Amino acid sequence: MEEQIDSVGKAFVDHYYNLFDNDRAAMSSLYQPTSMLTFEGQKLQGVEDIITKLTQLPFDQCRHVISTVDSQPASVTGGIVVFVSGSLQLPGENHPLQFSQMFHLSPTPQGNFFVLNDIFRLNY
Amino acid sequence: MEEQIDSVGKAFVDHYYNLFDNDRAAMSSLYQPTSMLTFEGQKLQGVEDIITKLTQLPFDQCRHVISTVDSQPASVTGGIVVFVSGSLQLPGENHPLQFSQMFHLSPTPQGNFFVLNDIFRLNY
Repeated sequence: MEEQIDSVGKAFVDHYYNLFDNDRAAMSSLYQPTSMLTFEGQKLQGVEDIITKLTQLPFDQCRHVISTVDSQPASVTGGIVVFVSGSLQLPGENHPLQFSQMFHLSPTPQGNFFVLNDIFRLNY
Repeated sequence: MEEQIDSVGKAFVDHYYNLFDNDRAAMSSLYQPTSMLTFEGQKLQGVEDIITKLTQLPFDQCRHVISTVDSQPASVTGGIVVFVSGSLQLPGENHPLQFSQMFHLSPTPQGNFFVLNDIFRLNY
């Protein structure tokens, strides 16, 4: 069970940042109307507002490199919390930016997960 | 509602690090048997294992300084996710250590919250 949680967390993280770095608009598949994103303190809710924020970030290209992924079962309802640390390489920047991000994944009736909670912070 | 969530998150964070810095053993009041802590990748579950870990960290004195607290409602069951960034000052160290930590707070029947999920990472 514990290994399963870790596998789901890691697979989600790979998928999330792969979409982020290569096809940001397709991240709409990860969110639902109840989803919340807090990005550097700015609060957004729902697929449209979240995807608008992500696609309008002031950089087109980026590359996330993941350092750590920690996952735990979140509740009896089958959710998972995932905590990520890593770095974000932007074009024209010599030094990558360190970041931390947490996700609360919630199960769908179809047996998948969607992102219920998403909180992102750069580490200064 | 949103402001309430923020207030609960901030109050919890103040309480948590106040106990951590001043009376670490008393943090047992924050956890329950289902609680999980992942501390720098090490997984612990239940009040006893978590408090043993926290009280046996290789420093007696410490001081947490909080930089950011982001909170979101976690689900229809009344939970809250809280994401913290800050620094940790240890005795004899010139430079504080940067850290990030997330909590998933779950409501108790008495109307309080306990820590269901707790994930801590130093930021290198």
